[in-house]
Amino acid sequence: MSSPIENAIEYAQAHRDSFLEGYQELLSIPSISTDPTYKAELERCADWIVAEMTRIGLKNSRKMPTTGHPVIYGEWLEAGGDKPTVVIYAHYDVQPVDPLNLWETPPFEPSVRDGKLYARGSADNKSGIWGNLKTLESILATEGRLPVNVKVFFEGEEETGSPSAAPFVVAHKDLLAADALMMSDSGFDPDHPMIGYTARGIISAEVTVRGPDHDLHSGGYGGVVHNPLHTVGKIIASFHDDRGRIQIPGYYDEVRELDEEERAQLLETYKITGPEFEAKSGVEHFWGESIAPVPVRATSLPTLDVNGISGGYQGPGMKTVIPSEASFKVTMRLVPNQDPAKIAELFKNYVESFASDTMQVSVAIHEKAWPVTMAGDGPSLEAVQRGYEDMIGRRALRVRVGGSIPILGMFQREMGMPITPLGYGSGENVHSPNEYVRLDHFFLSIEKSIRTFYYLAETMG
Amino acid sequence: MSSPIENAIEYAQAHRDSFLEGYQELLSIPSISTDPTYKAELERCADWIVAEMTRIGLKNSRKMPTTGHPVIYGEWLEAGGDKPTVVIYAHYDVQPVDPLNLWETPPFEPSVRDGKLYARGSADNKSGIWGNLKTLESILATEGRLPVNVKVFFEGEEETGSPSAAPFVVAHKDLLAADALMMSDSGFDPDHPMIGYTARGIISAEVTVRGPDHDLHSGGYGGVVHNPLHTVGKIIASFHDDRGRIQIPGYYDEVRELDEEERAQLLETYKITGPEFEAKSGVEHFWGESIAPVPVRATSLPTLDVNGISGGYQGPGMKTVIPSEASFKVTMRLVPNQDPAKIAELFKNYVESFASDTMQVSVAIHEKAWPVTMAGDGPSLEAVQRGYEDMIGRRALRVRVGGSIPILGMFQREMGMPITPLGYGSGENVHSPNEYVRLDHFFLSIEKSIRTFYYLAETMG
Repeated sequence: MSSPIENAIEYAQAHRDSFLEGYQELLSIPSISTDPTYKAELERCADWIVAEMTRIGLKNSRKMPTTGHPVIYGEWLEAGGDKPTVVIYAHYDVQPVDPLNLWETPPFEPSVRDGKLYARGSADNKSGIWGNLKTLESILATEGRLPVNVKVFFEGEEETGSPSAAPFVVAHKDLLAADALMMSDSGFDPDHPMIGYTARGIISAEVTVRGPDHDLHSGGYGGVVHNPLHTVGKIIASFHDDRGRIQIPGYYDEVRELDEEERAQLLETYKITGPEFEAKSGVEHFWGESIAPVPVRATSLPTLDVNGISGGYQGPGMKTVIPSEASFKVTMRLVPNQDPAKIAELFKNYVESFASDTMQVSVAIHEKAWPVTMAGDGPSLEAVQRGYEDMIGRRALRVRVGGSIPILGMFQREMGMPITPLGYGSGENVHSPNEYVRLDHFFLSIEKSIRTFYYLAETMG
Repeated sequence: MSSPIENAIEYAQAHRDSFLEGYQELLSIPSISTDPTYKAELERCADWIVAEMTRIGLKNSRKMPTTGHPVIYGEWLEAGGDKPTVVIYAHYDVQPVDPLNLWETPPFEPSVRDGKLYARGSADNKSGIWGNLKTLESILATEGRLPVNVKVFFEGEEETGSPSAAPFVVAHKDLLAADALMMSDSGFDPDHPMIGYTARGIISAEVTVRGPDHDLHSGGYGGVVHNPLHTVGKIIASFHDDRGRIQIPGYYDEVRELDEEERAQLLETYKITGPEFEAKSGVEHFWGESIAPVPVRATSLPTLDVNGISGGYQGPGMKTVIPSEASFKVTMRLVPNQDPAKIAELFKNYVESFASDTMQVSVAIHEKAWPVTMAGDGPSLEAVQRGYEDMIGRRALRVRVGGSIPILGMFQREMGMPITPLGYGSGENVHSPNEYVRLDHFFLSIEKSIRTFYYLAETMG
């Protein structure tokens, strides 16, 4: 007689076609959270997921309103009081798609080519939504029960910094109470088995610079009216010195330096991760290496990047205009122990100091999130690592990574939960045109997760 | 028996309704020269004007091809060899219309409100096209002949620096040979009678900065991949020091300082022109006054203005991207004796020096035009001033102005013609939303021009 794990895996293997079909349906919904135009699509996406959760046997599945995009909750709590309870986290919102013209197939018309499923969100992070649901379906369909108690928590605001999903967590501590958070905004690549266990914090901001109260002809007023685009240049130029060090006073004050062991481990793992990281960078030379080696700078030092500038005439040809205003968008990545509120304040004060009697400068802070360190070991990660061992014969390398998952800080700081990466994937071009997930790796990650759920009952028991 | 001047004026006054109707028809053609999308509209506009020229009795009226937008030529050369020949210049192309949402009525649906005709091009410079044609029509319709020989030369590239109209002039010196150029890219305001007699030169350029070969996620690569938007900031910030002086080495080397008399006259006329100039600026404080007084800086010193920046995500919300490239547009205004070719070379070398092993920087120069000084006195200007005297009882103040009319440098340097401002207007918001021309001033300027054409026969005789 075969084991529950084998039964569930057999189910998953037998249903790959229908799993793919549902995946494509999910990916065809343009759930772009940052653009208000798509608000109804986020609702539609959430409804679609809730229906699927109900269908596979999760209880109390529902869309719950926030002041922004809805969160999704569902549960299966019949494993027994002696079994651990885990929250599963993923996000159903996706990044914008521009530049649209660089996509080989439309971003919301999922297309399989060479074993890769191309669509916006295929990797980031509908793989996490779909991988978890298909894992749970495989177990429930074959055993009628789960080995641990599960709460599903999916949000629709990760790409905008979880402005209302984060307070939702604080307001629903009882509902979300659990022994561990399984964090599925990450991947699984059997050829490069790695578990990222850090996430940088993030602040996003928009700076607006206003000069004359209407656009002016630069022939008539050039030289005597201060041009907002020139002030935008002065502000941006001042952010970094020539080495790449951020110049805002106090910016690095709270940065905790890596200790010797962390640093040695980081440089050691970069020997493995480095070649791919460098190959995918699209550059011949990295920047700022005189400050710190690339892996340190990419994961364990804060950043400040301008992500977009707007102002003046941007069409073809020329227009001799001094624009009335100009603006730019900024994101900052934070590391332990930087406090997002403090850094946001430093940034705002610094940028607004460029105001003068010829120029107004204002700063809007859009999101603020803490850096987090996830479980580097412990019982929940042990269950994940045993899944790796079963699948590929070895444990995953634990690596520091530089991205951000804003809501994790809330779970860690407010609920004291160990955060455990449980990835599905692998994929590429997240946040870029032609995002894809490798289907072979995606299906394998479901098998790995089936194992992990059973192991959680043991390691956390 | 009434005089020819009186007859023509009577005709002009009797035909104001049909003059307005034709004006509106001309203004409804979106002849935006800088945007290739509108190429066919430029052709349509030229055809429309040629038909009108033929209708009113000009000879050999035709559209003549260039490598860019067509020029328009027509003539009436039967005044006799003892009469002077003048070339009339205006341009039928217009500026782009964005930001479109700030227009109270659509820019190409001409609308009369409070005696003002609102439309893109109503002042700059279809007033010059239409004012001249209606002046010539009024004389030809009543007298059957003109008092001087007239060549009409209208171009469709003024707003893009006349890249192909300027070489057209050099290639057609015989066709365009004349005793004076009447320059109608200027206004007429009986309440503030002024004649601008300078035009700054212009260079327009576009700078492109390229970093990684594809867009990157700033979470993964922030801090280690040099961000093109940061280099854009560094370049723009370096253009001016804090006083507003341009920092490109050698930029001011050839600038001819105003002599004592010019400077005194400029400051004196600014007492008259200043209040309006300041009121229309939309600012409370001017910039760069520690370098030179406002009127000197606005007319007699070179400038460098960034007119637009593009790069990264510009939609609503945030996108955590390091863009592969970014760009910005620049125009520089030049004064005697700056050589546009030399300054363009200085600019290009300076900006390209920001290239590094992490960033490519390239500069495209789009247009180059010489600064010009027009007739400050002499027989052709005398005819214009007598027109002012007849209409308002006094002569116009001659003022230095800061704008550019690129093709004038060709006429002045290649053909040695005195350039004589013959304005129609007055209007506002040229290059901005809600451009308009005051209809009362427009109709009066036709009467003034009728007088000027008759006086040209005397003063230049």
